[in-house]
Amino acid sequence: MKPQRQMKLGAFLPAPGHHVAAWRHPNTPANAGLEIQHYTQVAQTAERGKFDMLFLSDGVGIRTHYKDEDELSRWGRIVQFEPLTLLSALAMVTQKIGLTATASTTYNEPFHIARKFASLDFLSNGRAGWNVVTSVTDVEAQNFNLQHQPDHATRYRRAREFMDVVTGLWDSWEDDAFIFDKATGRYFEPQKLHMLHHRGEFFQVRGPLNLARSPQGYPVIVQAGSSEDGQDFAAQWAEVIFTAHQTLEQAQTFYRGIKGQMIKHGRSPEQAKVMPGVFAVVGQTRAEAEAKYAILQELVDPVVGLGLLTGLLGDVDISGYPLDGPLPELPETQGSTSRQKLVYEQAQRQGLTIRQLYLSVAGGRGHRFILGTPSEIANQLEDWFVNEAADGFNIMPPSLPDGLNDFVDLVIPELQRRGLFRTDYEGTTLRDHLGLDRPLNRPNKSTAERATLAIARGAE
Amino acid sequence: MKPQRQMKLGAFLPAPGHHVAAWRHPNTPANAGLEIQHYTQVAQTAERGKFDMLFLSDGVGIRTHYKDEDELSRWGRIVQFEPLTLLSALAMVTQKIGLTATASTTYNEPFHIARKFASLDFLSNGRAGWNVVTSVTDVEAQNFNLQHQPDHATRYRRAREFMDVVTGLWDSWEDDAFIFDKATGRYFEPQKLHMLHHRGEFFQVRGPLNLARSPQGYPVIVQAGSSEDGQDFAAQWAEVIFTAHQTLEQAQTFYRGIKGQMIKHGRSPEQAKVMPGVFAVVGQTRAEAEAKYAILQELVDPVVGLGLLTGLLGDVDISGYPLDGPLPELPETQGSTSRQKLVYEQAQRQGLTIRQLYLSVAGGRGHRFILGTPSEIANQLEDWFVNEAADGFNIMPPSLPDGLNDFVDLVIPELQRRGLFRTDYEGTTLRDHLGLDRPLNRPNKSTAERATLAIARGAE
Repeated sequence: MKPQRQMKLGAFLPAPGHHVAAWRHPNTPANAGLEIQHYTQVAQTAERGKFDMLFLSDGVGIRTHYKDEDELSRWGRIVQFEPLTLLSALAMVTQKIGLTATASTTYNEPFHIARKFASLDFLSNGRAGWNVVTSVTDVEAQNFNLQHQPDHATRYRRAREFMDVVTGLWDSWEDDAFIFDKATGRYFEPQKLHMLHHRGEFFQVRGPLNLARSPQGYPVIVQAGSSEDGQDFAAQWAEVIFTAHQTLEQAQTFYRGIKGQMIKHGRSPEQAKVMPGVFAVVGQTRAEAEAKYAILQELVDPVVGLGLLTGLLGDVDISGYPLDGPLPELPETQGSTSRQKLVYEQAQRQGLTIRQLYLSVAGGRGHRFILGTPSEIANQLEDWFVNEAADGFNIMPPSLPDGLNDFVDLVIPELQRRGLFRTDYEGTTLRDHLGLDRPLNRPNKSTAERATLAIARGAE
Repeated sequence: MKPQRQMKLGAFLPAPGHHVAAWRHPNTPANAGLEIQHYTQVAQTAERGKFDMLFLSDGVGIRTHYKDEDELSRWGRIVQFEPLTLLSALAMVTQKIGLTATASTTYNEPFHIARKFASLDFLSNGRAGWNVVTSVTDVEAQNFNLQHQPDHATRYRRAREFMDVVTGLWDSWEDDAFIFDKATGRYFEPQKLHMLHHRGEFFQVRGPLNLARSPQGYPVIVQAGSSEDGQDFAAQWAEVIFTAHQTLEQAQTFYRGIKGQMIKHGRSPEQAKVMPGVFAVVGQTRAEAEAKYAILQELVDPVVGLGLLTGLLGDVDISGYPLDGPLPELPETQGSTSRQKLVYEQAQRQGLTIRQLYLSVAGGRGHRFILGTPSEIANQLEDWFVNEAADGFNIMPPSLPDGLNDFVDLVIPELQRRGLFRTDYEGTTLRDHLGLDRPLNRPNKSTAERATLAIARGAE
């Protein structure tokens, strides 16, 4: 019997896979990140698997932690295409799958972001998603005229104002503003143009956007911050929440908390899908899955493993501590503090040495790790899905194309058999797939909605 | 007998065509600018015609001059896709044609521009071009936290430093830096990574770019400014120079001048292709061409015509002058002063009223206007091409798809019969088509070249 509710699945596909040694795997094209053919192939595979969306992370600089260029040269994932250009290309070789790109509110201007994502939404006929991030490294700040990143609170104040501006620009034109009336020479109805005239702490933006309202109204808003600020931001804005949790209990606490916060923001809890990341190693048998994982683990360069861990801990220098001893106590940093806490707690909970800890994050970087047969993987996904811990998952294949092929060919059919996942796309837009409302544009929002917006935004 | 030298041709294809009334033409899809299918079709037509490149202009705001929203609503080309996302999509539905997008140095950060164009160059297998502009309207400034645009000199100082940073980022990695050595775990050779460490008046950028050196080394640099600053900038940096001239003499003066300035900058004159814009109306007979033009001219709304002229003159208010009287004397503005001069001189030279003047620019907006049979069009292009006025042309179809179809089906074959244009692509990259050298990356430049760069850049 088919359950009413089905899980949502993202395919999180950085070339050449999530495992830090993925590029060294025999079946992985080592130069995958520089080959559009590779991306075309994996995007089409994900669409064959009926994934809701392709998800691409991004940074504006080499965020890898390294002490010198010799160390950096052992990393395999330091160059990648800019995701908006890449997804625009992939829009032309796929038909249904959603396309979600990461772009930072810290070092961009809202006008550019509003326009590019609206363009992608048009190019893809309504399949665009925007993963809203704040940038968290000094390395990125140093590519944008700063020595150090702005502090956490400033980044989030900017991100909130950024959202006001971007959504305001997306509401520049009502949905039916453009009438293209050749006979009368009227291209649009003047009363359906709305200037923004935004004046805030960080931005002054007059508008309008020089692009019509896009097929989805707004591209789907995705958010991944798990700090207190990040959760409040997500509760207000996010329609997909990408999280990192390792235990059911943690995930449930987060899930219930964020849904409650959404209600406080006047939103329906169904209007945001909580999707924890899952690093999944799949085999026909458990032994096969373990063998696949072992191949990758054996390829981890210890220098890279330590660098990875250092980065996850917020660039704290732990190089002076013995690899086979415990992780020392760590100071608070301005980096992504919630991930740091997660990794630190894992080390304590499982009693791991530094070496064991870096090997444990060499795949999922702190995300949930699942290894097993298709049935075991499905059991574990179902467990979180039916127990108020997740509305779906962002699937992180260890290496590409193998890890994605395994998931699509083995796990997806098992989820479909259980009625937990679609057998075909319900509609044509990413909002259709995710079951999300299409946002009304601002002038058409009800008085109550506008009041809620005004309160939430602390402006207008 | 085939001449040694063949012309280069750009297809300048804003939807739905260059004529201000193009959207009202019966054969033009009025919503062309919002339809990826339209762009796919015209891009494939241009590729069938063996054009060197597709060329897209851009602005970051509605640059149209208008006095109220009622007037604006009569314009037909006020919303368009962001060109980098659009060309990334078109890269997947074309194989050979170059893809040149406009992006401003005034309201962007060089890191983003370097990365996006390098991505497009990868996605298209070496077909990217960047039309470097400075933004010239207050309307755009007001979308980027300013009330007024920076002055002309400041914009150009920023543009020059922008080029230093962007090309420096493109030289972050030597061409053979990435070795992908799975056995040793070495992804790149550390000595082939070069940090930028740029510190200038406008930008501080550490680098490196988080993307490998792209197939063309640098995307082809296109430039269109014709002011004194603009010409000096072009002589130093441009590989394609898009100009606006109405007489052979003007074009020759510009052509010889810019080639001379290139030599002063230590560059070979062959390394920049001067391509004036040409608004071409083609008919099987002259009468047919005239009839085609008349259809568009009759569709010009007088309010739009006056607005167009006002914009070309640098947003000077001429609404108080009688339409059937002469153009008054104009003040200097901070807008695009060379275009203003060109239009003003045309009015004086031809003794035009304001109405006659706006009708005369309703198609080519000050660019060269040619109307006639394929043979007449070819004669006029050949005249400039063989007389040191042009290395090729940027073709501006009056309306799409008709105007492009006419040029490809009627004029291109005539140019090919005369041996003036290719019958097939010579290579695979835009540099191949244009006969441009692939730039060495900075660490590999000769001492002389580096000295030239240092002088030209006034830095290092």
